[in-house]
Amino acid sequence: MTHTPHPLSEKHAQTLAEARAALAARSFYSRYPESPSPRVYGEDAASHGRSAFEGLLGEGFPGLGDQPTDGSFAGSEVSPYGPRLRVRYPRLDVDAAVAAAQAAMPAWRDAGPLTRAAVCVEVVDAINKRSFEIANAVMHTTGQPFVMAFQAAGPHAQDRALESVVAALVEQERVPESVVWEKPAKDAPIRMQKDYRIVPRGIALVIGCNTFPTWNGYPGMFASLATGNPVIVKPHPRAVLPLALSVALARSVLREAGFDPALVQLAAEDDGEGLARELAERPEVAIIDYTGGPGFGAWLEREAAGSGKLVYTEKAGVNSIVVDSTDNLRGVLGNLAFSLTLYSGQMCTTPQNIYVPREGIDTDEGHLSFADFGERLGGAIGRLNGDDAKAVELLGATVNEDVRARAGALEALASRVGGSLVLDSRAVNHPTYPDAVVRTPGLVAVDVADDTAYTQECFGPVTFLIATDSTEQSLERMRDTIREHGAMTAAVYSTSEKVLDQARDAAADAGVALSENLTGQVFVNQTAAFSDYHGTGANPAANAAYVDAAFVANRFRVVTSRRHV
Amino acid sequence: MTHTPHPLSEKHAQTLAEARAALAARSFYSRYPESPSPRVYGEDAASHGRSAFEGLLGEGFPGLGDQPTDGSFAGSEVSPYGPRLRVRYPRLDVDAAVAAAQAAMPAWRDAGPLTRAAVCVEVVDAINKRSFEIANAVMHTTGQPFVMAFQAAGPHAQDRALESVVAALVEQERVPESVVWEKPAKDAPIRMQKDYRIVPRGIALVIGCNTFPTWNGYPGMFASLATGNPVIVKPHPRAVLPLALSVALARSVLREAGFDPALVQLAAEDDGEGLARELAERPEVAIIDYTGGPGFGAWLEREAAGSGKLVYTEKAGVNSIVVDSTDNLRGVLGNLAFSLTLYSGQMCTTPQNIYVPREGIDTDEGHLSFADFGERLGGAIGRLNGDDAKAVELLGATVNEDVRARAGALEALASRVGGSLVLDSRAVNHPTYPDAVVRTPGLVAVDVADDTAYTQECFGPVTFLIATDSTEQSLERMRDTIREHGAMTAAVYSTSEKVLDQARDAAADAGVALSENLTGQVFVNQTAAFSDYHGTGANPAANAAYVDAAFVANRFRVVTSRRHV
Repeated sequence: MTHTPHPLSEKHAQTLAEARAALAARSFYSRYPESPSPRVYGEDAASHGRSAFEGLLGEGFPGLGDQPTDGSFAGSEVSPYGPRLRVRYPRLDVDAAVAAAQAAMPAWRDAGPLTRAAVCVEVVDAINKRSFEIANAVMHTTGQPFVMAFQAAGPHAQDRALESVVAALVEQERVPESVVWEKPAKDAPIRMQKDYRIVPRGIALVIGCNTFPTWNGYPGMFASLATGNPVIVKPHPRAVLPLALSVALARSVLREAGFDPALVQLAAEDDGEGLARELAERPEVAIIDYTGGPGFGAWLEREAAGSGKLVYTEKAGVNSIVVDSTDNLRGVLGNLAFSLTLYSGQMCTTPQNIYVPREGIDTDEGHLSFADFGERLGGAIGRLNGDDAKAVELLGATVNEDVRARAGALEALASRVGGSLVLDSRAVNHPTYPDAVVRTPGLVAVDVADDTAYTQECFGPVTFLIATDSTEQSLERMRDTIREHGAMTAAVYSTSEKVLDQARDAAADAGVALSENLTGQVFVNQTAAFSDYHGTGANPAANAAYVDAAFVANRFRVVTSRRHV
Repeated sequence: MTHTPHPLSEKHAQTLAEARAALAARSFYSRYPESPSPRVYGEDAASHGRSAFEGLLGEGFPGLGDQPTDGSFAGSEVSPYGPRLRVRYPRLDVDAAVAAAQAAMPAWRDAGPLTRAAVCVEVVDAINKRSFEIANAVMHTTGQPFVMAFQAAGPHAQDRALESVVAALVEQERVPESVVWEKPAKDAPIRMQKDYRIVPRGIALVIGCNTFPTWNGYPGMFASLATGNPVIVKPHPRAVLPLALSVALARSVLREAGFDPALVQLAAEDDGEGLARELAERPEVAIIDYTGGPGFGAWLEREAAGSGKLVYTEKAGVNSIVVDSTDNLRGVLGNLAFSLTLYSGQMCTTPQNIYVPREGIDTDEGHLSFADFGERLGGAIGRLNGDDAKAVELLGATVNEDVRARAGALEALASRVGGSLVLDSRAVNHPTYPDAVVRTPGLVAVDVADDTAYTQECFGPVTFLIATDSTEQSLERMRDTIREHGAMTAAVYSTSEKVLDQARDAAADAGVALSENLTGQVFVNQTAAFSDYHGTGANPAANAAYVDAAFVANRFRVVTSRRHV
C-alpha cells in the first residue's frame, strides 16, 4: 500500500538520512549534545529543569490523565539521596489499556515505516528538550550523580533511542512496498504485482530497571513503536518518574501528529505488586523488553519466550578485565579507577573481575607484583575520591539496601572467600544530601582457585583482583566465567600483540565485546550509539544487543498480496 | 579480522551478486532450471539419476562413512509407491558428533561470511547436478509425483537454498569488518578502531519432514551453515534418503574446499526413536529448524525456545480461499482443481477451506448457487483426474495411513460434521505401482456454523466448501480461523475492488499472504524464491518465513574489539 507522507517525515528527513548513514558505517554520530552547558541548552535550562522537576513532587502526575485507569494511584519512590518524591501515578486499568492499544494499532500500522520513524524522532526531540527535568528525575530515582544523570539518561539515551528508530526504519525499508515480478515463459512472461505490507506483532511490553530507566528502556520502546507495535511501559517501582515523563511526552507528540496516544501507555505500580508478570502473561502481549535481575529475567526467558513471545533481556554478568602489561601505568590506573568509581560500580557494564598474574606485570614503571598492582589501583581510587564534595559527583548514591549491605561488609566478604581486603569501601558524606549513602569502590584480592565469589554478579562497589598463574590462565578464566555467567563488557591491558590476539579470540569465544588498552577518556563501561553494540546476545548476560538487525527484524512481519498484471 | 579470499569466492562472485540484487528487489531470479528436459540437464541425466537412485537401494548408504557412528544402522523407508527402500544409514554417535561439530566451528567462523557463502553455493550446485537422483529419492519417500519431485525438491528447493545463503551473506555484510570512529573533542578528536567479528551461535539442528524433506530442510540448513554454525540434519525416519544425499554432497564439498565435513552431519533414525527430542535437548544445540506436525512443534516452541534456543517452526494450518465473484469461471475452476489435486492436497500450502456465500456468486457464466459452484468445482476436479495414467502424475501417492484413512471416509466425515459430500475422493489405480494408494481430492460442504471440522487441519485430499451468509462473513471467518489456527496461504476471487481491499485487510489482520484471482499458471500453493515469502511468521502455522531478515539475523552475533588509534 502507498502511504500518505506525514509533515513530520519532511521535517526529520535529514536527521533520518544522517542517522541511516551513520548506522550503516557504524561511525560517530550524535544528534543530542551531551554537554549540559548553558551555551548548548540555554542559560535557564538547568534551573527551569530543576523547577519543573520540583513542581512534580508531592502531586498527581500530569500528562497521563487520559489513560484508562482503575481510579487508584501508585507511587512510592524514595530518592537514593534521601527525600520521598511523593509523586502519584494513576494505576492503569489493564483490560482497558490493552483494548485501547489494540484499537490504536491499525492506523499506526497503515501510516507506514517512514511516518512512524518521523513521529518517533519528534518524540525523542521532545524528550531532549526536557533533558534537565528528566536528569533530576533520574538522579532522584537511580542515585546517579547529576552530570551522569544528564548525559547517560539524557542525550546518550536519546541517541540510543534514535539509533533504535533508525535501525527499525532501515529494516522495514529493506522490504519493497510493491514490485512487478516477471517470470520468463514459453509464450509470454508471467507477470505479477506483489505488494508487501509491514504488519506489527502485537502489544509490546517494556519492563524498566531501577538504575538506567531511560537508557535501557528507550531501545525496546522505540524499536517496538517504530515497527508498528503499541507499547506499554512498566517502569521499576522505584524509578517511575523518568519513564512517566517520557511516556507523557510520547503521548503528547502522538496526539499532535494525529495518532492515538494509546500507542504508548505507562503502567505504574508499587513494589511487590507483580504487574510485570501480569502483563507478560497477557496473550495480547507479543514482545517483551526487559532489563533487571536474573530471577525474573530467567522466568521471562522460560515462560514468555516458551509461549511464543519475543523476549529481549539484559540481566547480570561478571564483567572482566585481564591485566597483562602496560607502557602507561598511570593511564591504566586512572582509567580503571574512574571506571570503578562511576556511579559506585552500579552500572551493568562496571568491571567486577580483574585478572592479574600472581607473578605481577611489566609496566613502564618497572615490574609490579600482584600486591603492588592492587596497592597502586587502590591508591588511584583513593585519590580520585579523596575529596567528598568532588567524589559524590562521580559516585552518586547507592541505589538499594543490597548494595549498601555489600559495600559495608567487604572485610567479611574477603575472609569468607579466602581472600584479603586490598581497599575498603569508604562511606562518603554528601554535602547536600546527608541521608544519601555514598560509597567508594572496594577491592578484594582472591586466588583464582577461590571462585565462589567472583563467578557471580556482586552488584555495586566491589571488585575482585584475581591472582592467576599466568595471563594465559587469566584469559581462560575470563572466557569460561563469561560463557557460563555472562558479561556485558571485557577489557585487556597488554603491550604484547600476541596477548591482544589471544584476548580477541577469548572474547569471540566468550561472546563479549572487548576494549583494549583504554588509558584515556574512553571507559570500558561506556558504549557509543550507532557504533558500539551494547551487549552481544552471545552470552548469558543478555540475549540481545543495542541495536543490531536482530533486535528489530523480528518485531514486524511482512504480508504479501499478489495478483496477475 | 581480515579474511583470506577462498578460490570459490571468485568462482561464485557473479552468482552471489545477481542473487543479492534479486533478493533486494524481490524480482524474478532462478539459478537452477526447473525443467527436467534433456535439453537442459543432458540426454542421459534422467536415466543416470534413476540408475544412481536404484544403486543405493538395499545397500549401506555411502558418503557418510567418516561420520562418528555407534556402529549400528537405521533405515526403514518404504516408498509410498510400494517398495521398501532398504537403504541402511550409519547411526550417529551423538556425543562424538557434537564434539566434532564444535571442533569444526572456529575455522569455519574465521573463514568469514563470503567464503562461507561461496562454499554453500558450491554445495547447492553439487546438489543441483544430482537433481534426478534426488528426485527419485524424494518421489519414493514422500509419494510426490515425479515431475513435482524433480521441480519442487530439486531446482525450486535449490533456489530456496541459495536464497537462504544470500540472505545470510547480505545480513553479515551489513556489519562492517572494521571502522575508525572519530569523536570530536576539545583538544583533539578521540579516535578508535573498532573491529566487528561475526560469531556463530552454536550447533544448529534441522528436523526434516516427510513430505518436503529438501524444500523445507534446505532454508534452515543453509541459513545456519552460512552464518557459521555447524548443522546436524535429522531427517524424518520415512524421508531420510533425499537429505542423506544432500548431506553427503555438502560434506564432500566442504572437504574439498579445505573445511571439516563435520560442519554438516546426518542423524538418521527409525520411527519412534525420539532422536529429534534428544538432540533438541542437547545444551550445545543453539538453533532448531523444524517442519512437521503441531504436537512436536509446540513442544519445541515451549521447551527449546524456553531454554533460550532459537526455534523456527512450520507446523499446520487451515489454508483458506474466499470466493466472491469472478469474470473467468473456467479459470477459477481450473486453477482450484489443480491446486487441490497437486500431490493429493498433501502440501502445507494446499487450500482446505473454501468460503462461498450460500446465496451463490456472480460469474461470467451467470449467477451460480452455492450448490452449483460445488458441482462445477467437483466436475473440474473430476475431469482433471479422469484418466488414471495422467492423474497419478499430478496426484502422486498418499504418504501415510492417516491420509489414507481420511480420504476413505469422507461420507462419514460429512455426516459427522453436519455437512454433505459434494465429491468423494476416488481411489486411482497406479499403472506402474499397483501398491500405491492414490487418491483424488474430495469436497465436503458444511455450513459456516458447523465449525468443528474446518477449524483444524485435515491434511490430505479433503476440502471444505463452507456456506456463509455473505462475502463479509467469509472474510471474517477466514481472518478469525487463521488468527487462531494458522495458515500458510490464502486466496480470494472477486471482481470487486472493494472486496479485494477488504480481503487484503483481512489477510493483514490474520498475518497470511494473499493470492488474488489466480486463474492461470500460478497456484496458491506455490511460492517463488527471492520474491514470495513462504509463511509470514505472523500466525500459528509458522513462526518464521522463508527467507526474510528475521530468519537469518539472529543466527549469528557480533563481537566488537576496540582500541585507540
